[in-house]
Parts: sequence; structure tokens; C-alpha cells
Amino acid sequence: MDFTGAHILSINQFERSDIERIFEVADAMEPYALRRKATRVLEGAILGNMFFEPSTRTRVSFGAAFNLLGGEVRETTGFQNSAITKGESLYDTARVLSGYSDVICMRHPEEGSVSEFAAASRVPVLNGGDGSNEHPSQALLDLYTIRQELKDRNRGIDGLRIAMIGDLKHGRTVHSLCKLLCLFQNVQVTLVSPPELAMPEDIVEKLREAGHDVTVSEELTHSITHVDIAYSTRIQEERFKSKEEADLYRGRFRLNQAIYTQFCEPNTVIMHPLPRDSRADANELDNDLNQNPNLAIFRQADNGVLVRMALFALVLNVADQVDKYAHPVTWYSGR
Amino acid sequence: MDFTGAHILSINQFERSDIERIFEVADAMEPYALRRKATRVLEGAILGNMFFEPSTRTRVSFGAAFNLLGGEVRETTGFQNSAITKGESLYDTARVLSGYSDVICMRHPEEGSVSEFAAASRVPVLNGGDGSNEHPSQALLDLYTIRQELKDRNRGIDGLRIAMIGDLKHGRTVHSLCKLLCLFQNVQVTLVSPPELAMPEDIVEKLREAGHDVTVSEELTHSITHVDIAYSTRIQEERFKSKEEADLYRGRFRLNQAIYTQFCEPNTVIMHPLPRDSRADANELDNDLNQNPNLAIFRQADNGVLVRMALFALVLNVADQVDKYAHPVTWYSGR
Amino acid sequence: MDFTGAHILSINQFERSDIERIFEVADAMEPYALRRKATRVLEGAILGNMFFEPSTRTRVSFGAAFNLLGGEVRETTGFQNSAITKGESLYDTARVLSGYSDVICMRHPEEGSVSEFAAASRVPVLNGGDGSNEHPSQALLDLYTIRQELKDRNRGIDGLRIAMIGDLKHGRTVHSLCKLLCLFQNVQVTLVSPPELAMPEDIVEKLREAGHDVTVSEELTHSITHVDIAYSTRIQEERFKSKEEADLYRGRFRLNQAIYTQFCEPNTVIMHPLPRDSRADANELDNDLNQNPNLAIFRQADNGVLVRMALFALVLNVADQVDKYAHPVTWYSGR
Repeated sequence: MDFTGAHILSINQFERSDIERIFEVADAMEPYALRRKATRVLEGAILGNMFFEPSTRTRVSFGAAFNLLGGEVRETTGFQNSAITKGESLYDTARVLSGYSDVICMRHPEEGSVSEFAAASRVPVLNGGDGSNEHPSQALLDLYTIRQELKDRNRGIDGLRIAMIGDLKHGRTVHSLCKLLCLFQNVQVTLVSPPELAMPEDIVEKLREAGHDVTVSEELTHSITHVDIAYSTRIQEERFKSKEEADLYRGRFRLNQAIYTQFCEPNTVIMHPLPRDSRADANELDNDLNQNPNLAIFRQADNGVLVRMALFALVLNVADQVDKYAHPVTWYSGR
Repeated sequence: MDFTGAHILSINQFERSDIERIFEVADAMEPYALRRKATRVLEGAILGNMFFEPSTRTRVSFGAAFNLLGGEVRETTGFQNSAITKGESLYDTARVLSGYSDVICMRHPEEGSVSEFAAASRVPVLNGGDGSNEHPSQALLDLYTIRQELKDRNRGIDGLRIAMIGDLKHGRTVHSLCKLLCLFQNVQVTLVSPPELAMPEDIVEKLREAGHDVTVSEELTHSITHVDIAYSTRIQEERFKSKEEADLYRGRFRLNQAIYTQFCEPNTVIMHPLPRDSRADANELDNDLNQNPNLAIFRQADNGVLVRMALFALVLNVADQVDKYAHPVTWYSGR
Repeated sequence: MDFTGAHILSINQFERSDIERIFEVADAMEPYALRRKATRVLEGAILGNMFFEPSTRTRVSFGAAFNLLGGEVRETTGFQNSAITKGESLYDTARVLSGYSDVICMRHPEEGSVSEFAAASRVPVLNGGDGSNEHPSQALLDLYTIRQELKDRNRGIDGLRIAMIGDLKHGRTVHSLCKLLCLFQNVQVTLVSPPELAMPEDIVEKLREAGHDVTVSEELTHSITHVDIAYSTRIQEERFKSKEEADLYRGRFRLNQAIYTQFCEPNTVIMHPLPRDSRADANELDNDLNQNPNLAIFRQADNGVLVRMALFALVLNVADQVDKYAHPVTWYSGR
């Protein structure tokens, strides 16, 4: 695809070469994210960070990514007082707001709303999550993390062995990750969940059509013995009818250091889309894993900044100019 | 007036030459708003964007205007937790907050509050709307839009023919626009509303005292046959005692493409202060006008950025230095 | 202490030499705060201004201080929708958020939370207030103000005569100020409050252990006759069981110009942590003091910016480079 001026709305719009281009640019962003240097390439540009549904980390991650490229951020959170309550169409909102910025990141509680907004926007729109529909930058950062974690051991996404664990029914991130994996080859996917929270059948079908090897299981320990990645997810209480129903499943597939040591291959990478539920009755990934160097969950979050920088740089067509506008970092950084 | 260090509180403080100066500076801001170049003229300056009443678009428009001049923005929205609830006077709030920035834009739900705040502020204050009282930058962007739209056809504000349509009783923007028009000559104003929502008598009187030709009507189609501008407004449901009362008037003066084609002169410009109510029972300006090149409603919103840049540049006395600090734009812009 | 990369969590971590270093750097920030020049020393750096409890003035003050050093600010206010409600530990929140910025300022309603957050953070954390526990930058700005106000009359913190007045039980700021004063010599402290709102005994003890002269009184006028500083505080209604109980004490120790003239030495400095309660039944510091040049309450707020700039500069180790990255201010400033 031609990224310049494009909207980034769904992982369905990417081919494998697009993913590889995004990751190549993300790699080039690392010295900036690590504060080895800074850049002014987007000096004077404005991101409209329009979160019509609150979100601290995704919002701050997008905003920080834009700042790291030298740009400014204008923001909104929530829309209880917005013009939408006065009968304004999403078309009008988009026409107006797109006059205030060079690129918009938008989160909205309704499925499809971000695409509708993008159709009327005069600047590129990045989907920051539209309900339970799409959250493409999250899927990209997951895949980027897999690539980065396996790099040192000369393995890649082709030939990947991954277990996905937990609430696979409601987990938007694992759905998207599966779709992205369909662009790659020879992946072994083990899906570990209670039958009631199984991965939707159409996604399993897509994986099989892509030639991948899919195993379904209700048992954790045997499923994580021969994988590169153990990808755990949170029981999304807010998607259940009641707390009681969620409680039936909470804590079912706990991974802790003892289980890891006993069952996993050395260096099996542990991932999670965050937030992880650390309450005693959930404890999906035990705190005793915090010292395990293969716990990649915070590197995932860090990689989100790289991937979002890459998306901004590509959409605004400055990927090749970032270094030209570099300047030294003057301040202390412990990174 | 001398703009340097001045508060911008009310359109009543302007003479015609002041308006012309603001518009001249707004014209010079266009290359920056269109991202043909960027400027660092306010690099290091801070706008305190103090919205004690939420507003996405006015707040973001002011903030973006300041960013486009190279400045930084610190913001607040709402005041449910502010010191005001602990008995702090507006005087104290102003003394404190004005120590944090170089200029303040303030919105506040109470009439007169922004002027009271400005009296105690140590930096210039721009009124971003104080209740139903004043919103001077909105009135300026309306008038600027009229000037810009008519420029190509060698017409101007002197000699203007304008119809104002809808809720003329509650519409703060049309009140202010009428007052500004009193600074110009030979304007023909047609006021179209139900009698219960008529333009306040004192404003009609002011227009007549300025020598303008005022016609009052309850009928849309005949009122828009010979005008340069058809300025439609929203039935402001929130100002009525009940939704039912507002419903009596909603949708009374709908303008759509068929009516436009049948009754208007070619190139009649359509304006609206936004948000327009696009719900089926309101539909003040039908969506089928969206393809009409004379629908100027989004250019109005865009012009708001130019006018606000001009106000900042004048009040901070950098209007003549903007170009001196210009630098090239590196990124993609579809504008 | 070595400031580089350090967390600033509590005034207990400072020795006298640390305070003096902070104040020395704060002095050097004055030309920037007064807009005589601007600096780019933190250009490209990001402050995560994480206010998990709303606060307009402290939040904006920290943000403005960072902007004045050339840095960018990403913010959050409140946490009703945050991951914490999904069972995320403060450890995880800290690991994630510290990946988005170079330094974090954090306010949180729970005592000790900021320290817990800091322990997991990968970047320096400044405590912006954790419940009724610590708010170190407020204590520093109070002490800095005392130093600045007395400078012109060749007096200093050693040998200071100060009266603290009002709700000394709940006032976090006076507690912290007393602790800081223990680092200095020969201070005379008069504590004026109703017995029910007296300064906690352990703090009185600390002052006496430091060799200071402590007087306890229930009477205002005789307590302010021979002091350099009259430090008034607000009856913190929100800390009482009921408004009625707070009303018992409200307005008990009013200071106005007549009392000042009759009882105080000329040039006695009036301070208050703000907000002052200006409602008729409270009126701790009467509005007729607003013209008194010794009313230092707004200079206190201004000094907060200097002290916070100093903390950022020290923690990020750029205190000695601020001038190297200076550039001229182009815009009007009435300061």
C-alpha cells in the first residue's frame, strides 16, 4: 500500500510487505525512543488525539510517539458534552476537527465509527480502537514484539510456535493477532481456553486456510511445553453479563514461575496485551514472573511507541527524513 | 486600539480599523494554517487554555492556533474539583493562573466572569465564551468568512445582503454578528424566525441606527432570493424550558439543495455557526448540500484558526515577526 | 544527595545542602520564568503529568515548568476509567507509563502510592501529592518564598520568626514546612490555632529537637507582632466530619489590613498555601490586603514554577546547560 496520506483503520488493509515496511521504520525509531537522539522532523505538525472514550495508556502512547517525532498534540477525552449530543453528524465532526490538525488518532466506543469519521476527514486518521472492532496498532505492536523477542535466537514469525491463553472469545487483541499471522507461514497456534470462551470459529478457519497448524486445548501446562510465545489474556469482566459469570473463568489458567520452570522451554517468551489482572483471584501472570527476563509484557508496551512512531512517520511521509532533523539529547536518561 | 497586551473580551471594544487589522493579520496566517510553512515565532510561549466549561472544538481550535505559531498549550477542562469550590475568588484564581502562562484563553459558564478574571490577570485574556454573553472570536470568524467568500466576486461587507435564519432570540453568534455589521455600511439584513424566536429589539434598533436596511420575516424561501449570505442557526434546545417547546420550532426553516436551486441566486453562500443539528426532525441544512461548493460551514471552522492565530499574534505583538521565524514543512499535507 | 535520575518523593530525603542547591538552581530559572529569555534544553523530552486525582493549579504549574525548559507534556486527570479498575497493580502501571516519558510527576489520592509507583518506574518520579502524606514541591516553594521575601532586608531562614495560623492539624503544607525548618537554625515558631486543630505533637517535638523556639497560642493579634512571616492556612472543610464542624472554626483568625497595620511590624510578609477561602464567613486573609505589597501569596504560586523547573533540571541533570540552549523571547510580556 501507499502509506502517504492513508488512513490506518484495520489490519485487513495490510499485506505482508506493508507489515515489513512498518517494522523496518519502527526499527529506525528505536534510537529516538531510547533517547539516544531526538528529532524535529514533525516540528510544527499537530496530532488531534481524539479519544471519545477514555484511555490513559493508548492515548498517552500515541501522544508520546508524536512528541518523539517533534510534533505537538491537541487532545480530547470523553464526549459527554460534545456537539454530538446536539445532533451533529460524525461527518460534520470529522470535517471540523480535521481542520485543526495534520493527522488524527481516534478512539470511539462504536464499531465502525472511526471508518465513518475517516471517510469525511481531510487528514489521515489512525484507528485507536472502535469498540470491540479494531485496534490495529495493538495488533502491530504484538507482532513486532514477537519479531523482536525471537530475533536474538534466529527465529522469526515464519515458523512461529505460539500458545494463546485465556478469554479468546472476547479478546480483540488475539483476534487481530491471528489475522496478522495469516500473512506469514508455517505457524503453530495452540488455543487454550474454556470451551465457552473459545476463539471464534471464523478466525480458526482463517488460520487453517493460511496453512497454519491449529490445536485447541483446555489445559495450560501441556500447551506451553513447546512454544516460542505464551500469550496470556485477561478475563474481560466488563464483557460478561455479571461479575459472577466472569468469576467462573477467572484464574483458570494461571502462569507462574514454578509452572514456567517445570513446563516451558528455556527462553519461552511471555506476552500479555495488558492490563494484567493482578488481583488474588485472577493473577493470570503471577508477580513472581516479574524477574523473569522472558516476561516481555512491558517491552510490548514500549514497542507500542515504536510502532506508532512508524505509523505517523509513514502516513505523513517523513520516514526517510527523521534522521536528517536529528539533534542530540541533552538530558539524563536511564534507558 | 493598541492590541499589544490587551484583553479580547467583547466585540464592543473594536472599531472598524481594528477589525480590518485583525483580518489583515489573519490573511497572513493562511500559509501556516495550510502547512505551506511553519513558524517558531512563539517558541517557548505558553497558552493557558482554561475551559471551565467543556468545549471540544473551540478549545482545540484555540490550542491548535497557538501551536501553529510555535507555542505550547497547558489546558484545563471543567471545574468540578477546582479551588473555586473551596471558596477561592475569581480574583485569586486569575492571579495564580496568570503566573503559569503568557496568554490565557478562558471559557466560563457565567456571564461577565471572563472580564472579572481578566481584570485580575497579569497576562492578556481572550474570551472563549462566557455563558450566553460574549464569544468574540466566533463573531470575528463569521465576519472574516463573509469577507473571504465574497472576495472572489468583488463584493465586500459594505453593501452586504444577508439573511439570518432560525433561533435569532437565543443565538449568541447572530447577535454578535449584527453588532459587528454596525461598523460597516449599507447592509441589508433579513431576519427570518418564528415571532417567538425573533432577534432582540435592541439589536434590530442598533442595525437601523447604523443605517442598515432590516426586514423581518417568518418565511424562508422569499427571504433568500436576493442575498449574498444565508446564515442558518440551530434551535438551541438547551435554552428552552423543555424539549417539547423546542420541538415546536425545530425543522421550521429547512434549507436543502432543491430549495437552494429554486430560490437562491447562484453562488449564494450558506453559513452556520455549527454544530448543525442533522437529526431527521431538525435538519436545518440538509446533507444534500454537502456537495454544494457554496456551503461555507467548514471553511468557517477553518477560518476560526486563522482569526485566533491573528488575535494571539496581535496581543503578543508578534504579527510582524511570524515570517522571520518561518521554517519549511517537512511532512505530507493534503490541504 | 545526587539529584541525577533521583525520585523526589519526600522532604525527608533532603539535607540542608540539597535545599540550597535546589534554591540556587531556582534562582537561575528566574529569567526564563520572567520571559527575559527562553531555553530549548529539554527539547524532545516528555513529562508524564499523571494526576490520578484532579488538580488544576499544581498540574498546570508542573506542566508549565517543563514547557519553560523546552519540553513536552503528556497528561492524565482522574482514573475512573483506568486500568487500575481492571485489577492492574501500581507496579504494572508504573512499568508501562514510565515507557512513555523521561520523567513523571504523579498525584494520587492514596498515601504512599507515589513511592510505590516510583519503585517500579524506569524514569524519575516527582511526588505531586499523595493524599495527606507528602507534597514536597509545595514545601520547597514555601521555604523558597520565605528566603526570597527576606533577602531584600538582609534576613534569612536562619533566625527566622514565623507565625503559622489556622488549621495546623490538617494542613499538610505547614507540617512539611516545619520539617524543612528543622534543617535551619534559631527559628522562632508561633503556632496559632484552636486547641482542637493544633499542630501534631511529633512535629512540635521535631522543631524543639532542632533547637527552635516554639510558642503555642490561641490568639492571633499578639502572635503576629514580632514575626517576619505570618503564614495563614485554610480551614480544610473537606477533612472535617461535617460542614457544621468546620464552621465552628471558620473565620476564627481573620487577618485584614486594619489588624495588620495595628499589630504587625512594617513589612511583615503574609503567606498562604492557597486557595484562600474568600467567602464572607471565612475570609482568612481579607481582600483589603490585596494592595499590601507584603502579601506574598501570588509570589508563592509564581515561585512554584521556579522550584519545579529546578527539580526537573536537577533530576534530568541539565541545570548547568539551561543557558547554553537559551534563545531570545520574541513576544510581548508584561512581567
